[in-house]
Amino acid sequence: MNSKLLYSCLAVVLGTGAGYATSVLAQAKPDVLVKQRQAVMTLQGKYFGPLGAMASGKAPYNAAVVQRNAGFLDNLSRMPWDGFNPNTKNEKTAALPAVYNDRAKFDETASRLENEISRLVTVSRSGDEAAVKAQITAIGKVCGACHNDFRAKK
Amino acid sequence: MNSKLLYSCLAVVLGTGAGYATSVLAQAKPDVLVKQRQAVMTLQGKYFGPLGAMASGKAPYNAAVVQRNAGFLDNLSRMPWDGFNPNTKNEKTAALPAVYNDRAKFDETASRLENEISRLVTVSRSGDEAAVKAQITAIGKVCGACHNDFRAKK
Repeated sequence: MNSKLLYSCLAVVLGTGAGYATSVLAQAKPDVLVKQRQAVMTLQGKYFGPLGAMASGKAPYNAAVVQRNAGFLDNLSRMPWDGFNPNTKNEKTAALPAVYNDRAKFDETASRLENEISRLVTVSRSGDEAAVKAQITAIGKVCGACHNDFRAKK
Repeated sequence: MNSKLLYSCLAVVLGTGAGYATSVLAQAKPDVLVKQRQAVMTLQGKYFGPLGAMASGKAPYNAAVVQRNAGFLDNLSRMPWDGFNPNTKNEKTAALPAVYNDRAKFDETASRLENEISRLVTVSRSGDEAAVKAQITAIGKVCGACHNDFRAKK
């Protein structure tokens, strides 16, 4: 498969719908940005959920799962922010106008999430279960703070 | 915030909808599994798209973007597979029955994707642009092969 052919194939086989082919060449369309950032949130839920359950004693502690999920979350936590482009303001989304009106605070909270998760990656290698659970709790607080300030109530 | 309170809050603030609260405690519901695996595909599109464009000369080569995206893809490529649970067969999804009827081949293709992306992580550190582009092409072929065999045509 030559490279031109590859690109044509990519446009067909990859992605999950409208907007993909343009997003590789230029600024992604607003609906694509929203879909992508919501995808990150879905996966943060997938990998943080079990940790929250462990921290609260609802699920048995599993150090290997914590380490794996912390690594995934360390990557995921760096993925959503470029999706909060002002051009998405008119899309159907739970993001509040505060994201764009108080961007400094939003960005600070985003950095805090990245830092707390990065700390979990380190702590999860220590074998100190109490410290790991405390760090999971610290992450949960940042999730909650950000959703409280920047996401519409359900 | 104590840990019990944290858990209650998590169930409220996290996730993007139905099924989250149960997914941390037990097998996620079929619709949640589909949503999660589709989220991975969306993000693989986000981070592979620009690499495909570079490999085909449609976008200028950017070694830093390749390295960053390769790292993200290395994580993402390990996330979707547990979502292809046979209990999702009746959900609205483009996944073909072949995923479950020819699981060995599906799993082999999945492993091939992980391995090719892992190789890109290594190659992207080499500074060898031609080798990087060849490896991007190799990944695109696995994407295409898997979609061809296991995803409904659009």
